[in-house]
Amino acid sequence: MIRRNPTFSKLKGSYLFPEIEKRKAAYLSSHPGAELLNFGIGDTTLPLPKVVAEAMARRALEMGGIDSYAGYGPSEGLLELRTSVVRAFYDASFTEEEVFISDGAKSEIGRLQLLLGQGLRVAVQDPVYPVFVDANILSGTRDMVLLPCLPENGFFPDLKPAVGCDVIYFCSPHNPTGVACSFEQLETLVSFAKENGLLIIYDSAYASFVSQGGFPRSIYEVPGAKEVAIEVGSFSKLAGFTGVRLGWTVVPKELQYVDGGAILPDFRRLIHTVFNGPSRISQEGGLAALTREGMQGIEKNITTYLENASLIKRGMEAMGAKVYGGKASPYVWALFEGRRSWDLFEELLNDFQMVTIPGRGFGPSGEGFVRLSSFCMREDALKIGRIILNN
Amino acid sequence: MIRRNPTFSKLKGSYLFPEIEKRKAAYLSSHPGAELLNFGIGDTTLPLPKVVAEAMARRALEMGGIDSYAGYGPSEGLLELRTSVVRAFYDASFTEEEVFISDGAKSEIGRLQLLLGQGLRVAVQDPVYPVFVDANILSGTRDMVLLPCLPENGFFPDLKPAVGCDVIYFCSPHNPTGVACSFEQLETLVSFAKENGLLIIYDSAYASFVSQGGFPRSIYEVPGAKEVAIEVGSFSKLAGFTGVRLGWTVVPKELQYVDGGAILPDFRRLIHTVFNGPSRISQEGGLAALTREGMQGIEKNITTYLENASLIKRGMEAMGAKVYGGKASPYVWALFEGRRSWDLFEELLNDFQMVTIPGRGFGPSGEGFVRLSSFCMREDALKIGRIILNN
Repeated sequence: MIRRNPTFSKLKGSYLFPEIEKRKAAYLSSHPGAELLNFGIGDTTLPLPKVVAEAMARRALEMGGIDSYAGYGPSEGLLELRTSVVRAFYDASFTEEEVFISDGAKSEIGRLQLLLGQGLRVAVQDPVYPVFVDANILSGTRDMVLLPCLPENGFFPDLKPAVGCDVIYFCSPHNPTGVACSFEQLETLVSFAKENGLLIIYDSAYASFVSQGGFPRSIYEVPGAKEVAIEVGSFSKLAGFTGVRLGWTVVPKELQYVDGGAILPDFRRLIHTVFNGPSRISQEGGLAALTREGMQGIEKNITTYLENASLIKRGMEAMGAKVYGGKASPYVWALFEGRRSWDLFEELLNDFQMVTIPGRGFGPSGEGFVRLSSFCMREDALKIGRIILNN
Repeated sequence: MIRRNPTFSKLKGSYLFPEIEKRKAAYLSSHPGAELLNFGIGDTTLPLPKVVAEAMARRALEMGGIDSYAGYGPSEGLLELRTSVVRAFYDASFTEEEVFISDGAKSEIGRLQLLLGQGLRVAVQDPVYPVFVDANILSGTRDMVLLPCLPENGFFPDLKPAVGCDVIYFCSPHNPTGVACSFEQLETLVSFAKENGLLIIYDSAYASFVSQGGFPRSIYEVPGAKEVAIEVGSFSKLAGFTGVRLGWTVVPKELQYVDGGAILPDFRRLIHTVFNGPSRISQEGGLAALTREGMQGIEKNITTYLENASLIKRGMEAMGAKVYGGKASPYVWALFEGRRSWDLFEELLNDFQMVTIPGRGFGPSGEGFVRLSSFCMREDALKIGRIILNN
């Protein structure tokens, strides 16, 4: 029988979020009937805009009709949706050929490992979305450099330790700190990547929460980024598609290997080989989400989540935390100085029935923090105020 | 900038099926208005059973409601669907914990590469579903052993050349030859894997076309197979879900690495890391497909495809081919002795406007054959007879 792939022994025992679910379940089983306030996993709670739900329902029914049934779509996704993504999020210099519709960012990070291959040196923000670390460990990354994002550097890391790396994963607005990069910061990142020969894998999953001028929604707003960056986007937090599974990835034609060959044809070949596109019904939902009516519904939901974030921020401040993020992001990053994240997690759970994510779960620089998600129910966000009054 | 992953240079220029699409398009552009008979890519054409389409439509609409919206599902898939899959396809010794709902077999073969790791020696049937070869090449497989499946061995290969391999990919009913293995043949495979320490990755995507006694629908019908085999199943050909994207994978708890550790926890960890489950709407469709009403609709479609296969078989025989498969499989495997597959492909396209797949595209042992898919439209299957009369 096969040997165990040695990379598995380098992983932590369990992926962070299932661990949180386990502790939540343990609490509930020892406190039957307890009502938890869910600020934990960043999972959307507001219903899809009607126009989106109806478009998917229509496509589902059509799949039962002789003339409207359809089988495999292109592995790259429906052309119409690729066109819509370009129109909605990118400038006229992009073409559909550079856009690939995915079943979400997490899956795409997995597939990207097959593009990149083994033995790479990889840099990530610290704290970091755990998938970047775990997927790279699994695929045989040689080195992992953590770039601390802390209050003292405004959560934009010193990039120098990444000199000598092949790839840098970069997320803005940042999960978990909730801090968005300015244009100048992303310019610094792009210049650094060019000077030092790094590929940027840019996670823009939370871009739709950015509304302030000077804070880009895409890495490609920085001139020259096409030569160094792949952007991984998602409908999950944009449009509440966490359960619908839809995203996209941009691989610009300008992106080249060190020897000058284009990366785009290899990525296309990879997608043809290990993917058959997302569900046609999900793609129809994506098309509807990008219509004017869909976008109005989406923006309403995002406004609600940002209001939740503001309530959570105030609540955590009243509890004595220093609070970051939550302005251009659904995430609030709360620091209780001198405390340990997992202790905070247990205390907030036991004393206030609040589920959070311990910052330490995202990396060493998350110690002392907890992440609170504003994708919670509005009642839960409002209850933070009541808890504080009662204590 | 990064170097090209050296595995890409070992791949053929393009994945087989896009190449067929390209040639089809080229023919159509030089023969405007030509009506092609599509026996090419194995893509379903009959509509979904009403009960399936309606279940998906209902779930889609619910996603627009406050109380019925839902975000992330478990990465392993909805528990209810895992239970239904066990009940529908496996005996009572299996549990839901061993079943993972996927977005289709192709994606799962990609993810399995991260489980298996690099440097493996892999055996495949020849001819072979190209994804097995290409995904392994991309992930850094050391050796690839082809096991010829030919008329002279009844399309069941001599396994001896696979001694020393770590993994064997095995598909039955076989794509592309359309031949299903008997119980005794699968027993031989399982014994061989046990004696020689191979992991079997068993592709049962076409199992629902098997109805004859003595021909298993699952590798686990063979006693002891749980200790050596992962089974990759799919709703694509079972229920017409090629555009809906749904499948499942079974990793038995009995399956162990050479050192005795269980493989199941690693597979679960992998799925948690690089997958968030398929669309909830697709999963609802899967649940409906496995109800009594759904299964009745599915069986009706499969019967229609098998009738198409029979028409295609007769047509190809009348054209002078020796014909295999098509009885427990949607695929007809037609041999024109002394001819080359790509020449046959071009001739059938140019003279008869028939799109087929050249057998050579599936491997050296496919030379001289073309594969015809009975997932075609009924009119196309009927037209074969007319063509023969006219020539």
